[in-house]
Parts: sequence; structure tokens; C-alpha cells
Amino acid sequence: MLSVDEARAEIRALVRPLATVEVPLGEAWEQVLAGDIASDIDSPPHDKSMVDGYALRTADLRGDATELVVIEEVLAGRVPTRTVERGTTTRIMTGAPVPLGADAVVMVEQSTLTPGTDPPRVTLQVPSAQIGQNIMPRGQSLRPGTLVLRAGATIRADDVGVLAEVGRATVPVVRRPIVAILSTGDELVSGAERPGPGQIRNSNGPMLAALVRQAGGEPAEQPIVRDELPALQAAVARGLEADVLVLSGGVSAGVADLVPGVLAEAGVRQVFHKVHLRPGKPLWFGVAPRADANLPPRLVFGLPGNPVSSLVCFELFVRPALSVLRGAAYQGLEADRGAMVAEFQHRGERPTYYPARVATGARGELPRITLLSWQGSADLATLAQANALAHFPPGTRSYVAGEEVEFLWL
Amino acid sequence: MLSVDEARAEIRALVRPLATVEVPLGEAWEQVLAGDIASDIDSPPHDKSMVDGYALRTADLRGDATELVVIEEVLAGRVPTRTVERGTTTRIMTGAPVPLGADAVVMVEQSTLTPGTDPPRVTLQVPSAQIGQNIMPRGQSLRPGTLVLRAGATIRADDVGVLAEVGRATVPVVRRPIVAILSTGDELVSGAERPGPGQIRNSNGPMLAALVRQAGGEPAEQPIVRDELPALQAAVARGLEADVLVLSGGVSAGVADLVPGVLAEAGVRQVFHKVHLRPGKPLWFGVAPRADANLPPRLVFGLPGNPVSSLVCFELFVRPALSVLRGAAYQGLEADRGAMVAEFQHRGERPTYYPARVATGARGELPRITLLSWQGSADLATLAQANALAHFPPGTRSYVAGEEVEFLWL
Repeated sequence: MLSVDEARAEIRALVRPLATVEVPLGEAWEQVLAGDIASDIDSPPHDKSMVDGYALRTADLRGDATELVVIEEVLAGRVPTRTVERGTTTRIMTGAPVPLGADAVVMVEQSTLTPGTDPPRVTLQVPSAQIGQNIMPRGQSLRPGTLVLRAGATIRADDVGVLAEVGRATVPVVRRPIVAILSTGDELVSGAERPGPGQIRNSNGPMLAALVRQAGGEPAEQPIVRDELPALQAAVARGLEADVLVLSGGVSAGVADLVPGVLAEAGVRQVFHKVHLRPGKPLWFGVAPRADANLPPRLVFGLPGNPVSSLVCFELFVRPALSVLRGAAYQGLEADRGAMVAEFQHRGERPTYYPARVATGARGELPRITLLSWQGSADLATLAQANALAHFPPGTRSYVAGEEVEFLWL
Repeated sequence: MLSVDEARAEIRALVRPLATVEVPLGEAWEQVLAGDIASDIDSPPHDKSMVDGYALRTADLRGDATELVVIEEVLAGRVPTRTVERGTTTRIMTGAPVPLGADAVVMVEQSTLTPGTDPPRVTLQVPSAQIGQNIMPRGQSLRPGTLVLRAGATIRADDVGVLAEVGRATVPVVRRPIVAILSTGDELVSGAERPGPGQIRNSNGPMLAALVRQAGGEPAEQPIVRDELPALQAAVARGLEADVLVLSGGVSAGVADLVPGVLAEAGVRQVFHKVHLRPGKPLWFGVAPRADANLPPRLVFGLPGNPVSSLVCFELFVRPALSVLRGAAYQGLEADRGAMVAEFQHRGERPTYYPARVATGARGELPRITLLSWQGSADLATLAQANALAHFPPGTRSYVAGEEVEFLWL
């Protein structure tokens, strides 16, 4: 049986980013850039005033106050038409181009207009100004060709601003993976139904759909499938139209666990079945080649039907694969280390991921890990109180209160 | 002029959650619950087997191995029809109801079927079993009426699973705020255009739309509006159909800054104009009552036109307001403390938020803050490299390398 690391290596070796698509800038947020982005312009596009004020020649300033003739007013979006010469100044708005001849801008707060003169006159209450004061030179922030964002970056809100600045009405991103979600089991009814004897509602399907969305994929939740060959075969065929097929249930050793056989018949090659892990041991993984052999194969994950097992397998195996498919690095949940609040006896030869509540401590202190009472791997109500999965390596041993262990932030 | 805290208190006093709507479970992820959610069922719905195995009477186990008659096989989704009596056992799948008479389940891995007998017989290689072993009692996780999620919780992926389990095909959530975004300025052209002399591309509109989406709102980006009264009046009237109107530009003291007047004419009551802050001093905030006075007023934010100023004002003032509108607590970006990598001279009487790159240090060490070269408040290219805003209180003074300051994670 594979270890968690071995299983992850098998998956990693088979997963590659999906194709590049061009999306409107308004849809680019949180997608992954598929190419480097360079500026097509100077930014600022001109020597730019950084304040509302008066553009002038610093050499003209004398004494504590200097009166100058206002020859022009330049609003934002307009360009100066006159050169600032000795004894003159141009009224200028924040962002507007600095006129020829001027070498500084004095803030409007330091000026007083002389009443009733034509042309207008202004007195500037400053003894001197530095050359370049309140002026941002053309191209200081960006030059044509300056690299602003790199391929592989997840596009943040401020990146959207930069992309707009450098003229990207559309952006090349890696296509989001479409993930078919198929919940199997004769015992399942939908959330809208009231379970009869022996039945439970399908919680895995909706939970996995939300996890896929959170991981940047597009979930396509399929109707519940019974443990019957023809229904399962048809559902698997439909699910294999997606980039990833995630099944939940039907992969244990039980009599009704038909999934592995049906997948094999559908041309899915089994890469592994079962992982040395608790919960989540029955995990099944395979790949289905596409008609175009240049394209990466479709991925098929058979997750155990218990919600906690399903979540653990999604986080350890499916999330990092989706990350690569959508163009980012191979990465799952963030790992951290914390201190156990109470003692804990770990039993068994499988590494365990245990739902836990982690509280961040005072500065310099480790986060504190409280294990949640866990009634078998099917207890969703416990999971909803968890914000982490505590990780215990294989081997029976006691952990004392205060002992340091690894955990994953949910 | 108001301080940042005073301005935030003014906003906070005027903002209330929007109305409750019922959304399909598939759309509930990341929305905020508008009511407490209780279970409508027992979970598990029956005494449930936690493994694939044999349900039996513990009193029957003797010696190292016991042979029992298999009277029935219960698949998932089925219910037992026979009572387990002395000397008999029922084959049972994970999740299936435990038959009457049985008080434990032994794992299938500890069993061997006797070949060729009818009825079938199985030998269990266990000397004994505890009463209740591998059985999760009915209702142990949830009872009807058990509170599973509270109003005000942001719905996570595992919560979606719980909501499905307790029968919620639809979920009451607080409506997402619709946020109209209006970029004003004669100097602006769209990202698809090449700027002429004196022009720049509109980067604020797309950036603010992405920030709104990230904050859980629904952005409605309007076309660029020129600094002309009729165009601005029409655009403001349209924008006031949204829950929040965010304008960028047009609120400074410049000649063309027409926004405050147009808003007053449109019935928006100014709450404050200008905040003791750098960048972001020109911020304008007002409210417009709705026809139904029971509903919270529409909010109007006039942000400065410079992208960095705009971002700082969004994070300090708009994000927390959106958080309340959508039903969550009043909260903005996460604050933290870090150590300055290099010395820094802070000047002026306004608190400053400075784009910075923060690296998390080794355990027990503070995160390290590197201030980014910041060419006036308009430099988006710098902002795109920032992952934090370092915060300096008012007052001219030197910060030495290693000194501790507050920052906000972007």
C-alpha cells in the first residue's frame, strides 16, 4: 500500500496545467496568469503633477512670497499649451502633465490668488522649492516592456488594476478545471428529501462542490447514482467529459463497491487503490487519456463515502492536483505546527488526520490544538466545528499536553 | 477633520445588514447565514455500523475463533429484516443499520467464510468484542433540534455538507450588497484604449470591482464618466439604485471636482468629507435614504482617484461596511505586528498607510516589513508587489531597523 507521500508523487507526475484561455479583465480575479505581462506604455505617461498647485520655475522664487502671472489652467485630461517662462506659472491639477519650462509644482494650499487681476496673478508663500518637487517623471513607474506580472501568479485585486493600466482588456489565464462530482450509494437521498429507514442524505456532493469552488475549479454536481452497474456506467461516462471526475463512495472492499470495475471498463487506468492513511485508506486514483494525446489526461479520484474521509482525501490529494491544473504551483492546505492542549493516545500503523480546533496563541507561542471528539469518520457535525486537521505520524504512542505536532489549516 | 477611528465610527453607526434571501444550497458557500440552523433528524438515523463486517452478539464469542451462521446481508441503503439470535450473525456494510439482537460489529478483515455451506457460515478470529464495538448509536452526532450553525456564520465548505445533512436544500442568507462603481475624470480612458496626451487608463474601476468581489459584494462597474455635470448627474442617479455607490475621483479640492455637489443634489446627505489620513485624505462619505424608511440607507463613498489612495480608503472604510451589509461582523483586513527591516523617517501629522512587503519570519520572530518605494499615491506597479500596508501613527519621527510597527495584510 502506498504512503501518502508516494501517492501524492504518483498524482503529481500525471497532472499538468490545462489550456490557456483569454478572459475579460472583469473575470480575471483569482485566476492564474498564463503568460508574463509587460507594460505597453510609460507610467506616468508624462511628467506628472502629484498635487493640485502651480507649476513654476524654481529660479523665480524669491523671499518669503513671490507673485507670478497665471498663464494657463490645465485640468486633468488636458495638456498644457504654453511654456512657463520667467515670472509666469500654470495652474495644474493632480495628475496633469507639467508644462514645458516648469521644474517644480507648489501646492495650492501655499498660494493666494490676487483678487481682480487680468491676467490672474498668484502669490506663492514659499521661500524656495526643490527642482522636481511634486513632479513624478514620465516612465518612472513603468516603461514599455517592463515586466509587471509573471506567468503562474494568481491575479489579486491590485493586479487587476495593474493589468488595466497596461492595457489588458482581456487576460491570458489557465482554464479553470471542470470537476464532475458523483455521489454513489443506494443509501443516499438528496438534501431536499427526508431519509427513510437505512437512508442518509447526500452531504458529500454539496460539500465537495464547495471545496472545488474554493480550490478554483468549476464543480459540476451530478445526480446521486445507485449501486447498479448500468446507472453507474452511464454516470461515469458523463463524468469523464469533465477534466476531473470525483466520485464519493463505492471504493471500499464492500460487496456493493462497484466503482473500480466500472472505471476500468470505461478506459480509466488505475494508478493506485488504497493509501496508508486514516481516514481515507480506500482512496482510488486513475487517469483517462484524452483523444488528443498531447492534452493531459483526465483525472479520476474515488473518495471514500464517509464525509471526514472524503474531506481528508480531497485536501491531501485533490486540492493540490486542482492547483496544478489551474496553472499554479502544486500546493494544498497550509501546514503549521502547534501544541496539544490535552494528552492524546495515537493508535495504529497509519498516519492519522484528526479534526481539530486550533486557537492562535500570544506572540511567540505555538497555536493551541484541541482535538475534536470524533465519532468515526462520518461525523460532519464535528467537522463543521474544526478549523484544522491535526496530523499524527504512524505508530502507537502517547502525546502529552504541550507536545508539538503538525496540523493543516482548513 | 475626522480621525480614521472617528470616520469609521460614523460609518459603522449607519450601516445595517441587508435583507434575508433564501438561496439554493449550491450557492450558499461564502455567504453569511441569516438564521440559526438546527438538525431535523437524528444523525446517525439508526445504530450504524462504522465498518464492513459482521453484526453479532458479543456473548457468542468464545476461544480464539467462533463460527456463526450468516442469516442475512445488509447493504447500504437497506434495512435488516431479521433479528440476530444466539449463534447467528448478519453481514453488514459500513453505514448500514445494525440489526436487532446484535450488540457489536466485528470487521470483515477478522473473518473467514466457510466454503460451500448453505446457509453460509463465517468464522470470526477474535476472542471477544466490547459491547457497542464499531457501532455509532442513533442520534449520537445530532438530535432533532440540535443547533448546527449560528446566524452570522460565513458558510464554509464543510458547513455546506452539514446543511445538506440536516435537509437544507435552500439556505437563508443575507443578500450580497450590490456595489455600483463609478470612475470619474476627463483624463480617463478604458483599458482597451491607448491613452492620448494627458490621458491615463482607468485602473481604479477594475481594481475596485475585484476588491468588492473579494469582500463578498456584487460589483456593478459603470462606464467612465467625464467631469461634466449632466453626465455625472445621470451616472450618480443610476449608481444610487445599488446598495452602495463607490465613486473614484472627483472629491479633491480641484476645480473639476464636482462630485460632492452632484451627490447633494441627488439627495445624498454628506456625513463627512476628508479624513486625517495619508493617502486618502479627500474621502467623502454620505447616505441616501430609501423610499422604505425601514430599510438601511444606501451608502455612498467618494474615493480619491489615485489608485493607492483608493485602495487604502477601500480597505479602511468600504470593506468593513460591506462586511456588515452582508451580515457578518464589522471587520476589515487582518492587523498584525512586524519589525521594520530598514530605518524609516515618518513625516507629517497624518497617520500613514505605506505599501509594504512582509515576510513571515522563523517561529517566535516578528514578520519582517520592507517598505516599498512609493512614487506618490498613484503607483500601482509598486502596489502590485505589496502584500501589506504598514501603519505609522501621526507625528514626525524616525523608526529604526528592527522597530515594531503595525501592519494590515492585503
